[in-house]
Amino acid sequence: GDVWAVVDEHHLEGTYAFEDFRDAHEFTYEIGELAEAEWHHPDIHLQWGEVTVEMWTHKIDGLHKTDFVMAARMDRIHDEYAPD
Amino acid sequence: GDVWAVVDEHHLEGTYAFEDFRDAHEFTYEIGELAEAEWHHPDIHLQWGEVTVEMWTHKIDGLHKTDFVMAARMDRIHDEYAPD
Repeated sequence: GDVWAVVDEHHLEGTYAFEDFRDAHEFTYEIGELAEAEWHHPDIHLQWGEVTVEMWTHKIDGLHKTDFVMAARMDRIHDEYAPD
Repeated sequence: GDVWAVVDEHHLEGTYAFEDFRDAHEFTYEIGELAEAEWHHPDIHLQWGEVTVEMWTHKIDGLHKTDFVMAARMDRIHDEYAPD
């Protein structure tokens, strides 16, 4: 989708929109659980109606295939929150 | 505690330390639930071992008693995550 940008050839940054705080909050919880399951931990910024994620592979201090796979999985989770 | 600072006479900013991502993640969920219950919504930045909170009262674009009460409640929640 159009959510993600590669920043400084170093990390992915993506911003997801939500209807309210509740949905942004639940999404944050879901992607935090994903992060723990995959042992790949982004920075997550939760605010009213919006979640911003920064993600890279710390071991190589840059982007790895894993980051793009995680981004795609987050997109699919976010689809569940889309307004009807 | 020493967590919180008043920034620009406008908002509170506090950073909480945790042992790992899991605890930071669970704490984020707990304070998000508190925010919904009190209908007072901070910005929350979750990363490995750390959660940063920015909070103010949007209606007055500044600090109100509610912000300080919420900050104290977050401190008490954080106490449950303290290393033994």
